[in-house]
Amino acid sequence: MTNSLDQVSISDCVLRDGFQILPEPVPLHFKKKILKLLVDSGIKDAEITSMVPPKLIPQFGDAAELIAYANELDLKTATVLVPNIKGAERAIAAGAKSIVLPISVSETHSNKNIRKSRADQVIELKKIRQLIDQQPVQSRPILIAGISTVFGCSYEGKVSESEVFRIVESCMEAGVEHLGLADTVGYASPNQVKRIFATYEREVGAVKSVRAHFHDTFGLGLANVCAALDAGVRVFDASLCGLGGCPFAPNASGNITLEDLVYLMQKLGMKTSINLDKLLEGQAILQEALPGQHLYGMINRAGKYPADFKPER
Amino acid sequence: MTNSLDQVSISDCVLRDGFQILPEPVPLHFKKKILKLLVDSGIKDAEITSMVPPKLIPQFGDAAELIAYANELDLKTATVLVPNIKGAERAIAAGAKSIVLPISVSETHSNKNIRKSRADQVIELKKIRQLIDQQPVQSRPILIAGISTVFGCSYEGKVSESEVFRIVESCMEAGVEHLGLADTVGYASPNQVKRIFATYEREVGAVKSVRAHFHDTFGLGLANVCAALDAGVRVFDASLCGLGGCPFAPNASGNITLEDLVYLMQKLGMKTSINLDKLLEGQAILQEALPGQHLYGMINRAGKYPADFKPER
Repeated sequence: MTNSLDQVSISDCVLRDGFQILPEPVPLHFKKKILKLLVDSGIKDAEITSMVPPKLIPQFGDAAELIAYANELDLKTATVLVPNIKGAERAIAAGAKSIVLPISVSETHSNKNIRKSRADQVIELKKIRQLIDQQPVQSRPILIAGISTVFGCSYEGKVSESEVFRIVESCMEAGVEHLGLADTVGYASPNQVKRIFATYEREVGAVKSVRAHFHDTFGLGLANVCAALDAGVRVFDASLCGLGGCPFAPNASGNITLEDLVYLMQKLGMKTSINLDKLLEGQAILQEALPGQHLYGMINRAGKYPADFKPER
Repeated sequence: MTNSLDQVSISDCVLRDGFQILPEPVPLHFKKKILKLLVDSGIKDAEITSMVPPKLIPQFGDAAELIAYANELDLKTATVLVPNIKGAERAIAAGAKSIVLPISVSETHSNKNIRKSRADQVIELKKIRQLIDQQPVQSRPILIAGISTVFGCSYEGKVSESEVFRIVESCMEAGVEHLGLADTVGYASPNQVKRIFATYEREVGAVKSVRAHFHDTFGLGLANVCAALDAGVRVFDASLCGLGGCPFAPNASGNITLEDLVYLMQKLGMKTSINLDKLLEGQAILQEALPGQHLYGMINRAGKYPADFKPER
């Protein structure tokens, strides 16, 4: 019998978070190949693109095509990031089944990242909720709030934890179906992670289904995952080969590496839907699609993992 | 007032564990420069060389000179690895103040690594104890047992935990002053680490002063450190720029990266003797000494860490 506390949900964000920092757009056929590999590996949730003006970020000029392709695959949620109501309109028109709006805890980051105050972004969230509710039932996407700079901000440094929960509350009131807490710049530390998610469980509840999004900028990514697990979190973001970035630390790595996260979970005896051997084929596709790009992941580097790896409970 | 549970001791093993896998001997002047940098950064304990026949491992042909240099510096312990009594004799003759004898939990690894059974290696340990006790008091080195393959073995897979503690007991009976438990091939996982060190505290006691030696072969190094910290461990090994290796995973990384470990400890509010800014100068020395060698460390890669980084308790 499966104890549902043993089950973790791992979603990939390489096509959105990983690709947004690349200097050149990746051809659509590579994006499809990567998404197909992720799905074939057992990934059920992925953040696949961003619905932003192609003039601003040419990388996502093929968003509508990728959404259409994702809808042909066996995904539970193919999530599209939208910065505002306009993006949401376009995402819905393109057939998006899940959309995420980023909201910063840091006012400075909010203004720099989306050129809106936090208060205005909450208003935007409410507008998107209304827009979704006006759609025919079968075409209403899931609405997610992606709360950023939860664990620190490269502009403001420490952020206020009471502000984190004020924003969480605003998002719940606005009618989001899911919430993610993101360590946008990799500042989180294990004790802080434990404390914030423990507070989440106490004040909001259902910490099990909140999504933890960690970056590995300073090497603490998987240690933070363990801390979040201890606090009851069971939904994690990661990216294939750790792609992603932090514009404030030019050579820094990005998200935690999907492959290493899956390995960690299996070693901890947690159940995922993912076949690690299949997933390890992803590195070769990224090497072909992104020649010269530094790819992360210790298992990718080792080239193999212990064949007898049994869960250690 | 300082709570001693806040204090961690971090030792470096790049000159021994990191350099033993390099194809060419590193010139002595670079070794001295690295050791000096480590000491200037506040490192008090380092494993600096191995007393093995230079024909077998030319890298350590300068062991006596490096021991003499280390004795001029402000180190608490400059440890020399010795594979047997012969090595111990030479280390003592060279003025070593601390020696470590490796003993495997895995019988197969013991035979492959030091060409001796575990039982014979315990006999060797007793001989070394006798040898040390015959020295004049002021030239008696500290005797350490470095217990390897504690968390798994690339030959035998899982190792028996009761065997771990049988070996620990034999080493204590043989009169070692310190013990290290090593994840020689990077197989450890956080739950396993917590369990084994909890057993150590229960069955042996003073887990606070046992040395945890982790490799980052599959990316779990710092997560394992957090698990060990939770179990009460306060002494950790690491290596500058993560150098080290696992002969069974050709492209794998080595030890956990010293710089990232120091950052983690500071983020957790633990006190170390180490100045991270000074330590980050080590990368440039290694780049010069080892052209073309892949160096590890996420902070090394990011080039900086958050300037405002405060402990997060």
